[in-house]
Amino acid sequence: MALIVQKFGGTSVGDLDRIRNVAERVARTYDEGNDMVVILSAMSGETDRLLDMAAKITKTPDSREVDALVSTGEQVSVSLMAITLRAMGYKACSMLGGQAEIFTDSSHTRARILDIKASRIKELLEDRNIVIVAGFQGVDEKGDITTLGRGGSDTSAVAVAAALRASRCEIFTDVDGIYTADPNICSKARKLDRISYDEMFEMASLGAKVLQIRSVEFAKKYDVPIHVRSSFSEEDGTMVVYEDANMEKVVVSGVTHNKNEARITLSKVPDRPGIAMQILAPIAEAGIGVDMIIQNTRAGNMTDLTFTVPKSDFDAALEIEKEVAADIGAEDVLGDKNIAKVSVVGVGMRSHSGVASKMFAAMAAEGINILMISTSEIRISCVIEEKYTELAVRALHSAFGLDAEG
Amino acid sequence: MALIVQKFGGTSVGDLDRIRNVAERVARTYDEGNDMVVILSAMSGETDRLLDMAAKITKTPDSREVDALVSTGEQVSVSLMAITLRAMGYKACSMLGGQAEIFTDSSHTRARILDIKASRIKELLEDRNIVIVAGFQGVDEKGDITTLGRGGSDTSAVAVAAALRASRCEIFTDVDGIYTADPNICSKARKLDRISYDEMFEMASLGAKVLQIRSVEFAKKYDVPIHVRSSFSEEDGTMVVYEDANMEKVVVSGVTHNKNEARITLSKVPDRPGIAMQILAPIAEAGIGVDMIIQNTRAGNMTDLTFTVPKSDFDAALEIEKEVAADIGAEDVLGDKNIAKVSVVGVGMRSHSGVASKMFAAMAAEGINILMISTSEIRISCVIEEKYTELAVRALHSAFGLDAEG
Repeated sequence: MALIVQKFGGTSVGDLDRIRNVAERVARTYDEGNDMVVILSAMSGETDRLLDMAAKITKTPDSREVDALVSTGEQVSVSLMAITLRAMGYKACSMLGGQAEIFTDSSHTRARILDIKASRIKELLEDRNIVIVAGFQGVDEKGDITTLGRGGSDTSAVAVAAALRASRCEIFTDVDGIYTADPNICSKARKLDRISYDEMFEMASLGAKVLQIRSVEFAKKYDVPIHVRSSFSEEDGTMVVYEDANMEKVVVSGVTHNKNEARITLSKVPDRPGIAMQILAPIAEAGIGVDMIIQNTRAGNMTDLTFTVPKSDFDAALEIEKEVAADIGAEDVLGDKNIAKVSVVGVGMRSHSGVASKMFAAMAAEGINILMISTSEIRISCVIEEKYTELAVRALHSAFGLDAEG
Repeated sequence: MALIVQKFGGTSVGDLDRIRNVAERVARTYDEGNDMVVILSAMSGETDRLLDMAAKITKTPDSREVDALVSTGEQVSVSLMAITLRAMGYKACSMLGGQAEIFTDSSHTRARILDIKASRIKELLEDRNIVIVAGFQGVDEKGDITTLGRGGSDTSAVAVAAALRASRCEIFTDVDGIYTADPNICSKARKLDRISYDEMFEMASLGAKVLQIRSVEFAKKYDVPIHVRSSFSEEDGTMVVYEDANMEKVVVSGVTHNKNEARITLSKVPDRPGIAMQILAPIAEAGIGVDMIIQNTRAGNMTDLTFTVPKSDFDAALEIEKEVAADIGAEDVLGDKNIAKVSVVGVGMRSHSGVASKMFAAMAAEGINILMISTSEIRISCVIEEKYTELAVRALHSAFGLDAEG
């Protein structure tokens, strides 16, 4: 029949009962005649337990050793799953990242997959084994264990599916699919049946944290259809696929929000070439990521420059900019942690105009002031005061016709 | 200077503070100019925690998967140790069984080491790294993780020491050396400065469970001197080495006891060729190990046959023999769990006669009846009633001049 890759997250394998539930679900699909590869995360809480031990030793544990440490979490999950499936009478075999020949670079704790040979997986599948692969981990050319960063098991699943040319890759999670907005904020949010890789990419990076971004990149590159669905129900979730003509008829597919950023403004900066670099280079050197950057020109050869950083890096960034401001002769440095970013995303924007003005109008109608704006080909984002986040999401969801009926 | 292999057991690395203590001890030896390879067990309790999970799934978990599961225990220890040493400013690197090229057969949960290449360990040592190797685990030719059985980290340590031609192998444990008898029973027991491999082999297999037996075989085969010593003190422990002329002057080096066996007697068995095989083959087929076997001839072409089995297998063995007795026409099957084995061990026996009679006399003087006797070249063992165990050990300890002075 088909070769299906199923990935289950930490909550789905959080204890022995849940592992049994997953095993039964996998076995059903296998019994229908499908070849099965299962990718597992560590049991929920395990990765944090291991990282906490390392953190108690030192704030800066060696990253190679951290990878050897945390990769045990997935090793435990896959062996327990194989024991469970075999106890149920199925042929099953666990595979660690190295055994599955998931080769990565040597960037420990955030390695990138370079190649997947999967020769043993293929042999085991030919012998009708259910193959259970440790997610999140790979091996570098020296034979050292690497990990792919938080959420890396999604990328493991998609990459293994690509290497095996699987018919589909099912990502089981604790939500039942991708929604038009966060249902906790917007009661009228609807589950999407389909979403394009590009939209998913914008949604994921903007805070709808269902899939690791890199897994979507991988899926797009190798044309692997992803089915995001619930571990706790049999219902279909959301297919993440190449965009088709149908999708473009919908202007906006979803509304996302992100409260994890803060903004910093340097006011009355002397406007001369290279000034933005002088302001932002020290931030990059400190390993702090900058998201949005806006520069306004004032009268009198002065400019204001505003940018956003993760809230967790806000204090460090503010200290840096106070020094920078003194160096370059800026008048003042202002910081604001009470901001949020709301975005509308949709491949339909490419063929429809007026999306931005519709967005701004919807916000204005609710009296919400827009502090910053940034856009991509299929996304428009506005930074607003944090207190308006939920109101803005609901307003945009209605304005773009996304509300569920009834 | 020297290349030293140090092995620390689960108690010594039971929490982060103890790991720190071990790291400091290792660092001291390193700072004296020695090259250091450290072998670690899992943190105490961890192996049992993992095995318990597997046991909750099924009574007969797949052994390949059990190995993948329990080997995570040592993986956690070595990475935490490497993180600790690096945080202390030392060059340190963890090595899993596979990375250390500890090649074994595929007998999961009780694999035997076939070869150790250790090429990466050698490279790391040349670069003055402290190399921390996961004990208890190896890898088979398929690249699957294997484990060496309970106490296997001792064997890992000795085997790595042999492969690297280390100057010495130090086994750190929660006792401070090998004693002439169990100090809990015999207050006059003395710590031995030296003991031969052969004596250690007899002592270990007889219940003085300080070293895994196979580690002693390995040490003898490759002439690796083992220093058994305490993790919690700086004092010298006991050297396990080839016997020398000095050792032979001492007739008996130690007195051991074992309460873990039970005996089964078939009485009035028709005495014909092959009868012992008929009685014992079903026991072997049930996977039950037999230690001592004694056959007495009675009048009238009848014989009594007695053997000992582990207490944990006693009930199963008794059931088997009841069937066997009916088949072969034996009169009765008798079982006794209240027995113990006491032994005197010493390479000096080879050159001294009268050891057995001295042993029997010492027992008789205390009114202890001997139920069974077996001997090896350097050991005499007597089975007695269990209640006399402590008395017998103390009597023999005195009789052979082992008592500590004062």
